[in-house]
Formats: sequence, C-alpha cells, structure tokens
Amino acid sequence: MTPAPIRFSHQSHRTSDSPIGYFMRMAIETPHLISLAAGLVDEESLPAGPIADAVAHVLSDPRSAQAALQYGTTQGLLSLREKIVEHLARADSMTVSELPYDVRDIVVTTGSQQLLYLIGELLLDPGDIVITEAPSYFVYHSLLESLDVRVLTVPMDEQGMIVDALEERLKHLDHTGQLDRLKLIYTVDYFQNPTGLTLSLARRERLVELARQYSRKHRVLILEDAAYRELRFDGVDIPSIKRFDDTNEYVMTTYTFSKPCAPGLKTGYGILPRQLIAPMLNLKGNHDFGSSNFVQHIIDRLLATGAYYQHVAQLCDVYRLKRDTMRSALEQHFGDLDGARWTEPRGGLYFWLTLPGDINTGPEGELIKAAIQEGVLYVPGEFGHVSVEGPLPTHEARLSFGVVSVELIPEALRRLRIAVDRVRMGKLATQPA
Amino acid sequence: MTPAPIRFSHQSHRTSDSPIGYFMRMAIETPHLISLAAGLVDEESLPAGPIADAVAHVLSDPRSAQAALQYGTTQGLLSLREKIVEHLARADSMTVSELPYDVRDIVVTTGSQQLLYLIGELLLDPGDIVITEAPSYFVYHSLLESLDVRVLTVPMDEQGMIVDALEERLKHLDHTGQLDRLKLIYTVDYFQNPTGLTLSLARRERLVELARQYSRKHRVLILEDAAYRELRFDGVDIPSIKRFDDTNEYVMTTYTFSKPCAPGLKTGYGILPRQLIAPMLNLKGNHDFGSSNFVQHIIDRLLATGAYYQHVAQLCDVYRLKRDTMRSALEQHFGDLDGARWTEPRGGLYFWLTLPGDINTGPEGELIKAAIQEGVLYVPGEFGHVSVEGPLPTHEARLSFGVVSVELIPEALRRLRIAVDRVRMGKLATQPA
Repeated sequence: MTPAPIRFSHQSHRTSDSPIGYFMRMAIETPHLISLAAGLVDEESLPAGPIADAVAHVLSDPRSAQAALQYGTTQGLLSLREKIVEHLARADSMTVSELPYDVRDIVVTTGSQQLLYLIGELLLDPGDIVITEAPSYFVYHSLLESLDVRVLTVPMDEQGMIVDALEERLKHLDHTGQLDRLKLIYTVDYFQNPTGLTLSLARRERLVELARQYSRKHRVLILEDAAYRELRFDGVDIPSIKRFDDTNEYVMTTYTFSKPCAPGLKTGYGILPRQLIAPMLNLKGNHDFGSSNFVQHIIDRLLATGAYYQHVAQLCDVYRLKRDTMRSALEQHFGDLDGARWTEPRGGLYFWLTLPGDINTGPEGELIKAAIQEGVLYVPGEFGHVSVEGPLPTHEARLSFGVVSVELIPEALRRLRIAVDRVRMGKLATQPA
Repeated sequence: MTPAPIRFSHQSHRTSDSPIGYFMRMAIETPHLISLAAGLVDEESLPAGPIADAVAHVLSDPRSAQAALQYGTTQGLLSLREKIVEHLARADSMTVSELPYDVRDIVVTTGSQQLLYLIGELLLDPGDIVITEAPSYFVYHSLLESLDVRVLTVPMDEQGMIVDALEERLKHLDHTGQLDRLKLIYTVDYFQNPTGLTLSLARRERLVELARQYSRKHRVLILEDAAYRELRFDGVDIPSIKRFDDTNEYVMTTYTFSKPCAPGLKTGYGILPRQLIAPMLNLKGNHDFGSSNFVQHIIDRLLATGAYYQHVAQLCDVYRLKRDTMRSALEQHFGDLDGARWTEPRGGLYFWLTLPGDINTGPEGELIKAAIQEGVLYVPGEFGHVSVEGPLPTHEARLSFGVVSVELIPEALRRLRIAVDRVRMGKLATQPA
C-alpha cells in the first residue's frame, strides 16, 4: 500500500541541491578527470604530522583528555577563543587591548559555513534583502534562497566589489522605500570565491562608512567572509573590513580553519557585534549546543605550539607554485584566444576565466560536455550569478588549483583549450558553408 | 553615537536561552556544588586511550590521513555508515539484508541534536503540531518553540508514553479537524531524558500502527530519539520502534556517539525514510555541507577494531554502580518522606524524583535556593513540561548520575533531603502557631 505523502516544510521546498555537491560527486565518481572544479584543498600538504602530535599531547594527560572528550560550551573553547583574538589582533597589526572586541564576541562553529547559516537565521526573514558581489559564493546563494531572501548584486572589478555601484544600489533602495528590507551586505573580500579578487584597502573603509550611513531605522550589517585571507602568496596582508568597524557594531567577520589548516577538522569562527552573541548562541544551542569540542582542543594546541603558523607558511608555498603554474598554463593555452582573459589572484584557490562570448560554459552548454570528454572539469561561472536582473553571463568559468597536482595543471588547461576549439569547430560545422 | 537598532529575524525572537545552558554554566562556575543537574557524562571513563590509538592509526598512513583531513561528504563517511547499518542490524537482531533500510538512508550529523534540528526544519512550518511525552527532553522543546510549532503532550507511566492516551489525542485532533497540522510524534524511548523510563515492547508496535492509521492526507511520522539505548545496565535490549516500521516509511530514529562514547566527538546519526534523504542533505548542505570528517574517521576506526564495544560495556559497569548507589541513597534519604517517589531506570543517566506536592522544585521556588545553599543542584522538573495545557507539575526533579562521582552521590542526596526539610520547616515557621 502506498503510504500517505510526506508534507515538507516551506523552507525545505525552497532548498535545492547545491551545484557544488554535484561537482564534488562527479569528481569523486570519475577519477580519470582532472578536476579544476572541486573546492577541495591540496592533499599532500595536509598537516597529518602536526595534528597527530597535537592529539597525542591533548590525550596523554588525563585532565586535558577529559576536558577535550567531554561536552564543551555552545560558544566554543575559551582558550581557543583567546588565541583567536590574539591571532586576529596580529593580523590587523593591533594589540589585543586596542581591538574593539574580545573573547566574548567570538563564536566557534562547524566550519564558517555554519556561521554563515546561523547569521542568516538570526537576521533574515522572507522578503528581506541581502546585497552580494556578482559573481559570489554559490553555496551562500543557495543558503539565501533557502531562507527566501531577495538577493541584489553589485559588480566587481580588479579591486573587488565596486563600492560606487553599491552606493547607487543603496540610494535606489532608499528612494524606492526598500531600505527597510536591507539587512546585510555580503562580501568575500580576500581572494574571492569564485573570482580570486580582493577588495582594495580604500574600498574597505568606504564600505563601513556606507553601512553606517544607510543604517537609518535599523542597522545594515556587513558580513565579511574572510575564509581565504591567510592563503596569500604575494604582497602584504591588508587589514580586514572589521578593522574599520572601530566600535564593533557594523561588521561580522567569518574565518575558517578548513582552508589554511584542514577541512576535515571542520572548524570555523567569527567575530560578531556583542549584541548578536546571546541571540546567536540561543540559535546554536538548538542546532547542536556547540561544535566538536575535541577538534577545538586540537586546534588550540596547534595554535599554542605555533605548528599552525608553520603549516600556513608551507601551504602558501605549495599554492603559490600551483597558482604560478596555472597562470603560465593559461598564458600558454589561452593567450592566443581573442576575448579570453583571467583574473590575477594573489592568494586563495581560484582563477576566474572569461571566454569569448560565443562559448557557453553553462551546465547545459556544449563546453562542459566537451571538457568532460577531454577529461577536465571546471565550475560554470553562472553558478556564481543570481538570475534576478538581466541575462546571466554564460561564458565564464571558475578554475581551482586547490586539489589538482601541480604536474597536472598544464595538461588540464591544454585539455580545456582543446574542448573550446572543438566547440568552436562544431559551431562552424553546423553553420552554412 | 548610538547606532541604529539591529532587526533580528522572527525566528530569533522566538528562540530563548536553554535552561540546560544555564545549569551547565552554574555547575561550571560554582565547583563546590555537587551537580546532579548537568547532562555531562562520567569523566574518568572517557575513552582517551582508544581514541588516541584510533587517531594514531588513521594519521599514520598518508592515504587515510589525507582522506580524514580533506572534506568529507554531506551525508557522512560511507564506511562509517556501513558499520552503523551493521551495528543497528545487530541491535535489532536482524541481518543487514533483512533491514528495510541501508547506507543510503543513514545521515551522520554534529551530534544527534543537529539531526533533531534538521528534521524540524525539514518538516515543520509555524502552526504545525508535534506530540511529545510529558515530561520530555527540554532542549527539544526549545527547538520546537524556535520553529513556532504547537506542542501537545501525552502522559507517561512506568511503561513509557501511554499509547491509549496518544490514541485519544489523535482521535480528538481528527474530530476537531486539526489532524492536517500534525506532523510528528516525538519519543525518547530508551531510559528517557528526563524520567529514565523506557517504552514497552507492546507499545512500540502499537505506536507505529497508530502513525499509519492516522496518516490520512499526509504522513504522520514518528521521531524516535534513541540517544540512551546502548546505556542499558539490566535486562536485555528491546527492539527499536524502527524495527516495527518494516517499510522504512514512518519512523525516523536518531542515535548519538556522545553518550556511549565521547561527547567531545560530537557525532550522531539517524535513519530516515528514503524520501527524506535528498531534501535533508540539501538543508544540511546549507548548514555545513557535512560534519567533521576527521571525527568520523576516528569513530569508524573505533567500530572497526571493536574498541567502541569494549568501551560501552565498561561504561555500563560504571553507570550501573552509580545508578545503584543513587537508588540506595534515594531509599536512605527519601524513603521516609511521605509522598516522595522515584523512577527505576534500567539504563541511561537519570532518575525522576517526585516530591510531596507542597515542595516547589521550580527555578523560582524555595527548594532550588535551599539546595544550592546546601551544595547540590538538580534540574527542576517543570523544564521538561510544556505550559500549553493545565497547571505544570511543580514538585518534580531530574537527578542525573552522569558526571557526579559515585562517592559523592550519597552526600548529594543527603544534602537534597536537608534542603527539603529546611523548606518544610521554613513553611511551618511562617504558618500561625
């Protein structure tokens, strides 16, 4: 007998399969492919030794073992939050006492993704507005869709989000009476996923000023997703957007240990304005009343011994070589293709490739089929765009140098160029002679 | 300048601080107290050695280290899910091939709490109805409040939820046209938190029949929270409610490794009807795209070597002694108190103490103040009740033997009895002579 149908929630109906999940499965299931799609990290450099040492240390003493294996707190391990504050102060060239926040304003979560989700749940009601960059992080877009939020976008250039365009957006929202629905401005401000672009220093300061200025009846908050900050290969680190929020009132910043350390640990953290902490912990209490305490003790030890910092430095060397190799390969295989261009990431895991307008990179287009046949996978650029205004750009691609070995990068780009040429020849063949 | 106010979401406004959080903080902050309140586990028996061995094994081989430290999948580690299925088959005295579910129907989560939350998000809209036991697990009640769900309760006796009373509830909902809002029946069916009671075998079968019978236009699902199942001290294990759902259509069952292994690992899992899996993974993708992969590899190893089972057996010995000690102490210190009675848990972590009706155990009552002054803490029974119908019982208490050392249990009960006597004497003193 067929049972009565299951009635799902409205939110469940709004929640779709993430395209990134599809690509991760495809990469796992078809190992002959060279995947420039998966958001996985370099495998050889994963810090197995330092983590083994940290675990052995934590578990060797009965007291620390008990502390690590017992329940922790919803907010996260205090000694880890203390080290996080020191770490953040150093990164922004300040002393701990100069910071406008402290351990009470830090929350440790199951990756930074959980914090992005919780912030959404904390602030957003259906119909509220969030402004993101175009393109932006696709998983965040599915999260916003799930919460029935309206997404507006601001274009980017080599200096990241175009803050003048943001100001125009804000003015327009104000003039049309929609400012009361705007809750958040979201930016991946270091080596953005998917473009590799970084928000310039001048624009950071301006962004905070705009949030202040347009916080009329309620506060417009900035959500700074700094997941890739520590993966810088050239030049000097630039201050966080948070650095310009000198009263800890306008900016929430999320970080993760997944990219600079190990995704398997699945631990992230963030700084929030103090007023958000208690309501956030109430929500997180319902979700899980605290992320893995054992893993937090491991990371605490990695930070205490400095093994974490040694690892990040080594990791940047690994990724720098991959980035350089991919840049050379792009030059070699796409340098002669009119209309092709790519970003110049100074860190992170991604290049953003723009192909000539007639090459459709989309999931239903010809290029992705040809690329898979040739044995290379990329992420279609349109996943990073939101289809609320005008036509989507359909000739872009995200190329990750995260998990691919440095030896295979030139071959991957060679295959991709062959795929492009095959699509073009196919088109020529179907056109009248 | 005061910034504009933050506008929180409706859900955030509905989400309050968990009483369990308050008690966990109080226990941590006032260490002279003997806490019978905290839901923490026994510390001496935490499996530091087996976990250290498992980690050393996983990280010693470069391939398994890389697999454990890389991203995992949203659903959870396949080899762990395989072992979970074998474990569940054994527990319900079936072969894997006899089970109506397989690895595709298992989801691994950040503790079973996350799965309870995700199931709520998956199925429940504001105004929907969930039936729980009275009393029930308070953290689940706050979760339901956060989701703006209506909670109806069914009383319990020594055999757990009174299924005849459930049937009356269902009939009433049907006759009053409210059955279309009923989505879930929630039960903690082994050594319940907070009462220690277990649902009898006959009632398990009947519960599934009732869910089927009242699934008219849509399915009424049972949520079986089996967190304490493995902590059985006497008698033989009884089959899960899931065991009677022979088509895997009506019952969702959640388990955790926190209670039988280590809370710090923060890993739980559940079995869901197949149709729920894809929508569940879409939601979990937004939450975190997978719980800690590293921890899943550790647990996988503990199950593979059998260390997990050895640990559970030892743990049951530890808790059995504590349970016996608490039972004797209750007899010694409360046996002569007219109107006092307590449950007889055969497993789990809790006794449920009912005091004479004139003793108010509530958070604003006199007993909790007197108890803290005497140096003992319990959880007021009213936290386990929902104030939707009639007056709350105000003379009950949850006593946990989880974290308290066996040596301190008699002293804790002695102090509690003194607190009761002080409250009574205080009352006599204020009454007219």
